[in-house]
Amino acid sequence: MMRLAEELYPICRSITGAGLRQTLDIIGREVPLDRHEVPSGTRVLDWTVPDEWNLRRAFVEAPDGSRIADTAEHNLHVVSYSAPVDAVLSLDELRPRLHTLPEHPDWIPYRTTYYRRDWGFCLQHRRLQAMTAGRYRVLIDATLAPGALSYGEAVLRGSRADEVLVSVHCCHPSLANDNLSGIVVAVALAKELLGKPRAFTWRFLFIPGTIGAVTWLARNEEVLPRIRHGIVLAGVGSRHDLRWKRSRRGNAAIDRIMALSLRHSGEEAVVEDFVPYGYDERQYCSPGFDLPVGCLMRGKWGAYPEYHTSADDLGFIAPERLEGSLAVLRAAAEAIEHGEEVWKSLNPKGEPQLGARGLYSDAADDDRMALLWVLNLADGTHSLLDMAARAGMPFARIRAAALALAESGLLERLSAPGHPC
Amino acid sequence: MMRLAEELYPICRSITGAGLRQTLDIIGREVPLDRHEVPSGTRVLDWTVPDEWNLRRAFVEAPDGSRIADTAEHNLHVVSYSAPVDAVLSLDELRPRLHTLPEHPDWIPYRTTYYRRDWGFCLQHRRLQAMTAGRYRVLIDATLAPGALSYGEAVLRGSRADEVLVSVHCCHPSLANDNLSGIVVAVALAKELLGKPRAFTWRFLFIPGTIGAVTWLARNEEVLPRIRHGIVLAGVGSRHDLRWKRSRRGNAAIDRIMALSLRHSGEEAVVEDFVPYGYDERQYCSPGFDLPVGCLMRGKWGAYPEYHTSADDLGFIAPERLEGSLAVLRAAAEAIEHGEEVWKSLNPKGEPQLGARGLYSDAADDDRMALLWVLNLADGTHSLLDMAARAGMPFARIRAAALALAESGLLERLSAPGHPC
Amino acid sequence: MMRLAEELYPICRSITGAGLRQTLDIIGREVPLDRHEVPSGTRVLDWTVPDEWNLRRAFVEAPDGSRIADTAEHNLHVVSYSAPVDAVLSLDELRPRLHTLPEHPDWIPYRTTYYRRDWGFCLQHRRLQAMTAGRYRVLIDATLAPGALSYGEAVLRGSRADEVLVSVHCCHPSLANDNLSGIVVAVALAKELLGKPRAFTWRFLFIPGTIGAVTWLARNEEVLPRIRHGIVLAGVGSRHDLRWKRSRRGNAAIDRIMALSLRHSGEEAVVEDFVPYGYDERQYCSPGFDLPVGCLMRGKWGAYPEYHTSADDLGFIAPERLEGSLAVLRAAAEAIEHGEEVWKSLNPKGEPQLGARGLYSDAADDDRMALLWVLNLADGTHSLLDMAARAGMPFARIRAAALALAESGLLERLSAPGHPC
Repeated sequence: MMRLAEELYPICRSITGAGLRQTLDIIGREVPLDRHEVPSGTRVLDWTVPDEWNLRRAFVEAPDGSRIADTAEHNLHVVSYSAPVDAVLSLDELRPRLHTLPEHPDWIPYRTTYYRRDWGFCLQHRRLQAMTAGRYRVLIDATLAPGALSYGEAVLRGSRADEVLVSVHCCHPSLANDNLSGIVVAVALAKELLGKPRAFTWRFLFIPGTIGAVTWLARNEEVLPRIRHGIVLAGVGSRHDLRWKRSRRGNAAIDRIMALSLRHSGEEAVVEDFVPYGYDERQYCSPGFDLPVGCLMRGKWGAYPEYHTSADDLGFIAPERLEGSLAVLRAAAEAIEHGEEVWKSLNPKGEPQLGARGLYSDAADDDRMALLWVLNLADGTHSLLDMAARAGMPFARIRAAALALAESGLLERLSAPGHPC
Repeated sequence: MMRLAEELYPICRSITGAGLRQTLDIIGREVPLDRHEVPSGTRVLDWTVPDEWNLRRAFVEAPDGSRIADTAEHNLHVVSYSAPVDAVLSLDELRPRLHTLPEHPDWIPYRTTYYRRDWGFCLQHRRLQAMTAGRYRVLIDATLAPGALSYGEAVLRGSRADEVLVSVHCCHPSLANDNLSGIVVAVALAKELLGKPRAFTWRFLFIPGTIGAVTWLARNEEVLPRIRHGIVLAGVGSRHDLRWKRSRRGNAAIDRIMALSLRHSGEEAVVEDFVPYGYDERQYCSPGFDLPVGCLMRGKWGAYPEYHTSADDLGFIAPERLEGSLAVLRAAAEAIEHGEEVWKSLNPKGEPQLGARGLYSDAADDDRMALLWVLNLADGTHSLLDMAARAGMPFARIRAAALALAESGLLERLSAPGHPC
Repeated sequence: MMRLAEELYPICRSITGAGLRQTLDIIGREVPLDRHEVPSGTRVLDWTVPDEWNLRRAFVEAPDGSRIADTAEHNLHVVSYSAPVDAVLSLDELRPRLHTLPEHPDWIPYRTTYYRRDWGFCLQHRRLQAMTAGRYRVLIDATLAPGALSYGEAVLRGSRADEVLVSVHCCHPSLANDNLSGIVVAVALAKELLGKPRAFTWRFLFIPGTIGAVTWLARNEEVLPRIRHGIVLAGVGSRHDLRWKRSRRGNAAIDRIMALSLRHSGEEAVVEDFVPYGYDERQYCSPGFDLPVGCLMRGKWGAYPEYHTSADDLGFIAPERLEGSLAVLRAAAEAIEHGEEVWKSLNPKGEPQLGARGLYSDAADDDRMALLWVLNLADGTHSLLDMAARAGMPFARIRAAALALAESGLLERLSAPGHPC
């Protein structure tokens, strides 16, 4: 996952344009990706697909010829979606166009002007302070013109028509946690799921933030009733604790599943209520859709100083953090795939003699308890997910117990839930 | 409010009589008041309106001619509802009739004998200790005879027949927090509401405690089904934290509204469950009525040492505490008046582009979040009160956001709730 | 209770055999006991009644003739249900058959081999360490042969057919807390109930653990629908806090009753959720039965070091702890017998004048509040148990208030609940 992040990091992405397409090319190398191009000007819900932005180069040159801000040095130096400009300005004229972070004088902020035609540069506050009066050349060699908005979809068909949506925004340039981390974890999860039988159809969206989600929603209304669970992945590689932001519904199955997976992740984790601010769950959870979609994060948007700055670089994410996020999703995927299963005890009166069946004596304490929990709750009204939640045990342990008991003839699975494809 | 409290403080009030009528006269000067006189002996529910008590003067004179306790000095010196007496007694005979507070030797306790014919005096324990053997003259120049129980009602008609009940007891002599504070805050709230359009009919009761509430209930059973919310105001001027005692129902709309108003009051506040002891909510919440009436207090009856003593004087209440209580009621009144309104998003799919409508960029962060919350919850199933509670925001901020969104054509109000007059 | 525990302590009990029968004989001396004998080989649910085990003597004799482990010294020295053996073995051969507690070198562990034919000895680790190479004589003079499983039932008929089940296991040899304490408290409770009129039929089971409960369930399926409340008593004499383990249902009436009784016990107490491990509630709460049965304990199985060791001796239990457990059960019994009663106020509108009826002035504060609570909640929808729970008061205080109010004509009892016999 780190290698993929390293490959993606230098690309100058935005909500449209060549950098986004190159990113999708690389993702498409890892997982089978359906690519979509939606023309500028297309009306999508309350929004309009904007002109396409492509940047070749942008810099500010000081009177002494030195470069104050240069996209050759860092993609963040230009305000994303800046209109083209080629001019010589006094410092006073230029100053309002320069964005810095006084409290972090060596960091470059990340700024955008997607929906208001404007331009500007972002730079280290220390550099701004060193600037002296004089004539500055500014160049933004970009095109902002009709084109298309690009996104990719990896649809992994399962035996059920019901779908699981995994959505990651991939519009940010050279920011590692936000959201190369989400991209690489989604890719890793998709690759794992590709190798297994699946009940659910898993749909991974690689889209630009907000406008991408809005565009996908506008074009896929017929898919929405099939979405049973949804996860937005955003900022899952940093040192922060894992964090599940519940769906708007608050009590969707995915909320129970993620809470359970986090509880047994071995990491500190937070579960918090939905708020209508954050990542693309805002769109999926708008009242006209109200999909069961929450957001898995580490740290919260805007709540850590590195957020939307050049300090969110490859050193800001860590392999073990990516792995931890993937592990939680792996556990959640098992609970999604099998959590609705209902298994019924064939010996519901009193405890069966487990010793006589060789199920008990060699088992670890936790596994013995899992056997007892499954037997006790296998009354036809508890799903495997209900059992895991009530037992306070990892889903995988409960499922393994159910399979072992079924092997011994003590349990049978009731008809599988879900709508066939 | 302090000026009105100062004017009312010296009056010798009881549950009947001239002091109570004079108090209602002064209240009637501030707000339009319907006055009622209910004859002694009238049967009201399980009670009987008692004889009317009027005191001219009461004192205890020491052998040396000095006055040990004299109502000319403080109204609390006589036990309220004392029968007339004019006698000379030895200290031993007198002693059982003298009530003091040994733990607060400079305070005078407040005692009553409404429903048992008796008499007595209240005085500073220090004075009692200084009393020496000898003959004491006691005079209680009072009448206890058939008359009437007086109370006042200020009914502010609204466009709905539904009513809000605000009830304050005004029977206590020279006690500032209990309950001049309740009277003056109720008067201030009524005056504010008089100047505004009202959906609800607001009914302010100025009544003697217990017997007044019982009397009003007995005479107004046809009003009760219209009471949608009710607040007893008692002891709202002292230094203590604000405190809402829930209605017997526990989950009435007024309980949600007061909890929300307290949460955003900027003060420390407590919300506690109903108990069948306290102020007149005891009567309103008796099982045969079970009205949605709770009690707003600062500090709890009997729980602060100044309670029912001469130390509950004008210095014991503070203008900013009265203002704080009024502010909470003002916020609650807005939530009562508009909390049931249901507004529906006209753009429920995805977020609307707020920036394009000029709604977003200039707004403060909290106001932006309020816009997002209202849009997100405006699905036709959430009232404005539901939205404020879920957003964890002051009701006024949510309502302002709804009005701004409606102005932009993003929201429409569904038909107003309630029964027209 | 201590005297009965002392009498029972020396008996060598197991899940079958003479020691168990002798124990039932002694219990039958205290309360009327129906005795049952179920032949070995009888199929009971998923289990089979095992052969009967009777031990005369067992010991290990060292080369020097000293006794390393001897049941004449302590019943725990032999593994319960050991097969007969009479042999001379080297220390190496014997060693795997010797069980000790290295962390408590002076205690003898308690081990069993009910369902696997085997034999062994338990001893102090210090003795094991002192053993030297040589030839050891081992004798287990026991019979393991077809016989019967014994149990006793004390059924105290009430006026209703509905039943309360009290179940104690009485199969453990010379362990005081586990479960002579349960036996003697159950006997004491049964003796108290014998002397009173009863609405419920109380059924006390004195049974061997697991197999006894399974056997009783298999033979009494027709009784099960009548069981309204159930309590397993296990380990109620030690120094630990009282602990109620909820029934599988979690919200059964007995769960509310025990929580209330513990709350007002004057002791520290814990209420915890059901888990499918522990005592015979495992069988009663298996999904095919799902009876409303929880478990009253002090300390938790396996959670204190003395559990299942010789340190669980008569000094490990205390008279005041047995009394405290009995007191909680006495309070629970009153709540069981009367908790469903519904009393209705005859004066529901406003508070009745308690002073006029002499009910108020002399009462203690708590009793006054109980009067107010009962009057307030006596609306025909609250049972006495509901009232006690909402008032946060002991059941007995609420019931006494109801009886006093009924005496004054303010309350009437609605028709009694339950099915007559």
